[in-house]
Amino acid sequence: MITFFNHLHAAHQGRMEMFRGRLVPCYEVPNRADYVLQELQVRPLGAVQQPAQWADSHIERIHEKPYLDFLCTAWDRWLALDSANAEVDILPSVWPGPTLRRDVQPQNFSAQVGLYCFDAGTPLTAGTWQAARAGADCALSAAQAVLDGEKLSFALSRPPGHHAGANFYGGYCFLNNAAIAAEHLRQGGAEKVAVLDIDYHHGNGTQACFYDRSDVFFASVHGDPVTEYPFYLGYADETGVAAGVGANLNIPLPRGTDYARWAQALDAALDAITRYGVQALVLSLGMDTFEGDPISGFKLRSDDYFQVGARLARLALPVVVIFEGGYAVREVGINAVNLLHGLAKA
Amino acid sequence: MITFFNHLHAAHQGRMEMFRGRLVPCYEVPNRADYVLQELQVRPLGAVQQPAQWADSHIERIHEKPYLDFLCTAWDRWLALDSANAEVDILPSVWPGPTLRRDVQPQNFSAQVGLYCFDAGTPLTAGTWQAARAGADCALSAAQAVLDGEKLSFALSRPPGHHAGANFYGGYCFLNNAAIAAEHLRQGGAEKVAVLDIDYHHGNGTQACFYDRSDVFFASVHGDPVTEYPFYLGYADETGVAAGVGANLNIPLPRGTDYARWAQALDAALDAITRYGVQALVLSLGMDTFEGDPISGFKLRSDDYFQVGARLARLALPVVVIFEGGYAVREVGINAVNLLHGLAKA
Repeated sequence: MITFFNHLHAAHQGRMEMFRGRLVPCYEVPNRADYVLQELQVRPLGAVQQPAQWADSHIERIHEKPYLDFLCTAWDRWLALDSANAEVDILPSVWPGPTLRRDVQPQNFSAQVGLYCFDAGTPLTAGTWQAARAGADCALSAAQAVLDGEKLSFALSRPPGHHAGANFYGGYCFLNNAAIAAEHLRQGGAEKVAVLDIDYHHGNGTQACFYDRSDVFFASVHGDPVTEYPFYLGYADETGVAAGVGANLNIPLPRGTDYARWAQALDAALDAITRYGVQALVLSLGMDTFEGDPISGFKLRSDDYFQVGARLARLALPVVVIFEGGYAVREVGINAVNLLHGLAKA
Repeated sequence: MITFFNHLHAAHQGRMEMFRGRLVPCYEVPNRADYVLQELQVRPLGAVQQPAQWADSHIERIHEKPYLDFLCTAWDRWLALDSANAEVDILPSVWPGPTLRRDVQPQNFSAQVGLYCFDAGTPLTAGTWQAARAGADCALSAAQAVLDGEKLSFALSRPPGHHAGANFYGGYCFLNNAAIAAEHLRQGGAEKVAVLDIDYHHGNGTQACFYDRSDVFFASVHGDPVTEYPFYLGYADETGVAAGVGANLNIPLPRGTDYARWAQALDAALDAITRYGVQALVLSLGMDTFEGDPISGFKLRSDDYFQVGARLARLALPVVVIFEGGYAVREVGINAVNLLHGLAKA
């Protein structure tokens, strides 16, 4: 396995997020990635490298240019409004709800934030663009490694990506690293690719990126959106549109699901991927299926992740692993590396 | 003139709203209505009465039942989640942005808030339903007074209403009092009705209620949504759809507009209403066109409002006045009563 890591991830450090009516300290913190790196130093799995610097064109295959322009200029514009804004991260205050228009181009900064953002838990900070952009480089380098013949690569970056779409952010995510990696595999010659998302939360952004495409199969095992974030996508009846019909598989599971039941759902997703016939897998690796996660509801235990890795290995596909969520910060490292050992050594 | 006032308005007292990334004390405070009442006691314009209690069916002509069910049960559900929630008003944390579904029925409370709310400045509080419902009674009683032969009636209530739509709230608004009044005039026999909105902020909710209807003409003079709230509606190219084509007139004006320029726009709106030929007028009376308003950008002065009232009187229509925004709290009373004197005595 080869791991791509960039210390710039720590430039994204949100201060407060809106959670159940209150501003609370952010759950998605730099230590999350650092603990995984530490654990990989204790139980190594190959080289840890800096990513290459990839051209924006690779990211623009997934994200719309005006959205990227907004992201990379947002902090400077925020500061230009009021120098006191340095003390406060950017959170949305208004957005186009029912009957309001998306086909407008407001100049107001808050209005632009609302066009692009779908929650109040995702502060855009001084270092967000720098961190997210470096994270996309990790994803691209990891995908390139597989194109170059590696069996397993790991983009260890943050912020996560799977809730972000072509022109929106939310759920702690800004650039969809999994989608960027999958598209890079396609551009590099893989005819069909699968993205498997095992984060506790449905990867709505990734699904949206590929929902009308047959060349990228998206499968997700996640908390039922009837009760779990992101609530408005991730239902079992979402099977794709147009050319993408049949290339989207959601397996929502109730809060409290334990490893035995979860593993059955995983196997169903793996079977579907096998039947679809792909040349490579992108794994959106969220560690918030862990029983100790503070904002999630599954019951997986640390030792279970070795078996998860072994199950994934049965696909016998090259795998690009993308680090997503997981908020039991100390255990994220142990659990992620357990899974990677299970996958690398099966 | 007859005024309908209900002390229950004060049951809605939001604590904090999200404004430019920060939680700040609410601008829309109970004193706003109380100062208008005080000024009406100093310079009376007829009786001040309690409204009748109207059946929900009158409100359901404008608002969808599931939305009303949500509003009237929200606070109890919020408390049931956590008794500590009594200390915190309800604000949204996630909502259906691009590619997310509205055709789902999440059980999660936060997810339901996000389905119905389009900004983070509109706390839903312990007394919101009680106050908004009493406000709708004021609007219905004011409309009924005109149906019964009054030339001028005034629903002095809060929270305001013109940003709320059939199934959404925001902009400090929950029930659209102006739309409820206009519909009541229609039900009571007025063949065509106009709603004129002179709040600084476009009345997106009212426009949305009647956008496909020819029997209610909507005209608004407001801050240009390119730079002013609500940003995503209120553009000049919005002229109605289906049967409503030609029955919607938006006149957006730039920040800094003074009375002379504003009055030209008002006259244009009044001319359009005259040409449309209606039997009654509902006036959405926002006082945030005042030069001293803390969150708006026009330059009207207190004395100008006498002339505004006189201009409106030239329509020679019975008028139901609905109290909307205006956040220069002290002057709201003086300015509103100046306008009402200008209107009543012209």
